[in-house]
Amino acid sequence: MKYILKILLVLLLFSITLNAQNAKPNIIVIVSDDAGYSDFGSYGSKVLKTPNIDKLADSGVRFTNGYVSASVCGPSRAGLMTGRYQQRFGYEVNNVPKAMDPTVGLQGEDMGLPLDQMTMADYMKRAGYVNMAVGKWHLGIADCYHPLERGFDEFYGFLGGSRHYFQDDRDYIRKDNAVRRNHVKQADFDYTTDGFTNAAVDFIDRHKKEKFFVYLAYNAVHTPLQAKEQDMEDYGFLKDEKYQTYAGMMKSLDENIGKLLTYLDDENLRENTLIFFINDNGGPTYVTPANNDPLSGCKGTNYEGGIRVPFIISWTSVLPKNEVYDSPVISFDILATMLDVVNIKAREKTQLDGVNLLPYLLGNKKERPHKTLFWRENITAAVRDGDWKLIRFPDKPAELYNLSQDISEVNDLAAREPEKVKELYGKLWNWEHELARPLWFLQTKFDKQVIDKGIKYHKVKK
Amino acid sequence: MKYILKILLVLLLFSITLNAQNAKPNIIVIVSDDAGYSDFGSYGSKVLKTPNIDKLADSGVRFTNGYVSASVCGPSRAGLMTGRYQQRFGYEVNNVPKAMDPTVGLQGEDMGLPLDQMTMADYMKRAGYVNMAVGKWHLGIADCYHPLERGFDEFYGFLGGSRHYFQDDRDYIRKDNAVRRNHVKQADFDYTTDGFTNAAVDFIDRHKKEKFFVYLAYNAVHTPLQAKEQDMEDYGFLKDEKYQTYAGMMKSLDENIGKLLTYLDDENLRENTLIFFINDNGGPTYVTPANNDPLSGCKGTNYEGGIRVPFIISWTSVLPKNEVYDSPVISFDILATMLDVVNIKAREKTQLDGVNLLPYLLGNKKERPHKTLFWRENITAAVRDGDWKLIRFPDKPAELYNLSQDISEVNDLAAREPEKVKELYGKLWNWEHELARPLWFLQTKFDKQVIDKGIKYHKVKK
Repeated sequence: MKYILKILLVLLLFSITLNAQNAKPNIIVIVSDDAGYSDFGSYGSKVLKTPNIDKLADSGVRFTNGYVSASVCGPSRAGLMTGRYQQRFGYEVNNVPKAMDPTVGLQGEDMGLPLDQMTMADYMKRAGYVNMAVGKWHLGIADCYHPLERGFDEFYGFLGGSRHYFQDDRDYIRKDNAVRRNHVKQADFDYTTDGFTNAAVDFIDRHKKEKFFVYLAYNAVHTPLQAKEQDMEDYGFLKDEKYQTYAGMMKSLDENIGKLLTYLDDENLRENTLIFFINDNGGPTYVTPANNDPLSGCKGTNYEGGIRVPFIISWTSVLPKNEVYDSPVISFDILATMLDVVNIKAREKTQLDGVNLLPYLLGNKKERPHKTLFWRENITAAVRDGDWKLIRFPDKPAELYNLSQDISEVNDLAAREPEKVKELYGKLWNWEHELARPLWFLQTKFDKQVIDKGIKYHKVKK
Repeated sequence: MKYILKILLVLLLFSITLNAQNAKPNIIVIVSDDAGYSDFGSYGSKVLKTPNIDKLADSGVRFTNGYVSASVCGPSRAGLMTGRYQQRFGYEVNNVPKAMDPTVGLQGEDMGLPLDQMTMADYMKRAGYVNMAVGKWHLGIADCYHPLERGFDEFYGFLGGSRHYFQDDRDYIRKDNAVRRNHVKQADFDYTTDGFTNAAVDFIDRHKKEKFFVYLAYNAVHTPLQAKEQDMEDYGFLKDEKYQTYAGMMKSLDENIGKLLTYLDDENLRENTLIFFINDNGGPTYVTPANNDPLSGCKGTNYEGGIRVPFIISWTSVLPKNEVYDSPVISFDILATMLDVVNIKAREKTQLDGVNLLPYLLGNKKERPHKTLFWRENITAAVRDGDWKLIRFPDKPAELYNLSQDISEVNDLAAREPEKVKELYGKLWNWEHELARPLWFLQTKFDKQVIDKGIKYHKVKK
């Protein structure tokens, strides 16, 4: 009898899996830009309200140890878009044309996601999806790197790393800043956060009978700090105008994600749409009021405040609701999950670094998805192994933290745990020594700026 | 009375200085290649005999803490030739065409000493010298990097990093390996060590009425291991044929330096010829029988065995004889000394890193010529500050040694001296953060080879 029950259970599980496979979900990957770790209600903000993103979290799984693979925009997106450590193909430091070292490496428009790398959209195309990229691209300005050349069927957004939120003629002078529909400049929005949402909803509306994949990368809340007047009104109590503006930008971001979710609900698309939400890197507290509490560090550093980000998955017909998942996951896992969900085998050809998160979230796998994770940007590097984290610096001895007891990285245990330090150094090098060389480099003066930020925004023991 | 004596003494010193300036010396810089630290009699060899080089040491000053600026051939020569940390202009890793990373940086013939860098010969030309480069160049194969384009009036040697010692047709197929007189291939020697000496002596003989500068860079005793039969005969007692060959190569090197010195003596040129002898980097004990005892490490590593080398200065009319100088000096000091001796002011325009050694060797300056010295090759870096030395690795925690008590670097004091570690990390970074990016890169697999060599050839505590 017990035996028969077991068989029935297996058959049931099999049919659920099969069903899920037959009914491949629509997929939306939402990326916010430069938000602070605790600038979301669901991530502990006591000032900013993000009711729609919080509701998205409540409808699925919220990660408390969600990582990106880089502490700055370009490389982080390269990792997310390919499902690989971007250092494997040299997309290691940020690609910001004016800031590059002119003596070595690719320059200007030659910088971009190498053409031999498959993107999320390339994979989804194979699975029969119709794909759109919306918003900030930052994976190459040259025509060969354009989203339409990288597996996307439509594009509405800008190619560079940041632009004005309102219409600004200056953005239409530079190739990377103009908002385009596909290749054509199209200034048909008032505020980018609204414009990008409208473009995404419009695309979904036109393709709701097909399987669609939307990569929706807001520039919010990257600099420049520009908010709509009405969005700032709620935050009149904030005395600092910069903070008020930032709060207004966050409000618009949240409202727009709300608009998208409402549309999906209204069209009965929500249940079978797999939605990821992630922020691209830590908040740049040195230029914006982004708040990374309780994490140390900021954008550009390998402290948790540079690489641990708000990270949410929702798929209401399959995944549990109101879940909090505490084991470390990383942006790569988004593509790995997508691939398994749409039944694309990619691992044979390419070394993918993510894992399908579903078995972990459904409770089928109890161990951690990743035992060890790595970071490196030219100068500094870090490794998290279990709850131990080693950060290697050029200007000071490596630091060792136990994240389970010290989320703020204030108690450097390196001197007390020399064997652990050696072990993690070895693991880091074992990962590192086969990586590619960076394809481009920042001017060395920026190395110092990054190091100085690390010192300035490293919390200290109270 | 005491006052008048003082004035007389000052006048005397002034006239000596003036005399020395009027009678600008001829200058010869002799470079040997890949010899082990203790493969010279004067540096403690118990097996190999180098009577002529020992005599050169006896005729002047022998340095026991003489350094080069890199642990491999190309960058070391770039530092020597420019008097600058070669990392200032991106000549940071070895330029070995087949070994380069193809994805980033200069490739093949594009690699070379950047054209905006002044060479020793450029400076000497300003001082009215006639200049010759003999032997191994390894500062660029392309025509624009040719010695004749870099301040030398004549060249006899090969452009690459190594070649056969005997005639070998294979060397005449490749641009970098053929021996040339100026630009023309000229195979008029039996054994390179002899051929290079003959070319140098011939040049001096033709220009002995002028002021001459000869840069005489033997390929001895770099691989391939090839010795003349008669030079191996003395070493028949060595059972290992490889070692016997190596010993024969050392014998020929020594004999040829003897030939040059005898010529200078015979022509009464010796007294006013300033002669430097230096080896380019540590012995590559992983491929040759080079002996770096008592130093740890080898070519390619930042242990002393990679960067501390035999280093001799002789100028019999000016410098003391039979001197041993123990404070740290570095290959840069050769150009700085030459510039002061020939009265060329270069520091205003270019950041030179060497110091004129004469005041130290004459006892006019008592302090150390350098308080702090630095090394870096892409992955690893090191700093020597006083007698403290910190080595920074990618694969293990930084190590700290006190060289005054521990020449073999076996007692890592990092754990016991954390404040010293921090201090030296800071000094290293302060030097490092403004350096250029490397202009080319080795394939990453070589990073691992270097690290593995460091582990294998690091002496252990007995």
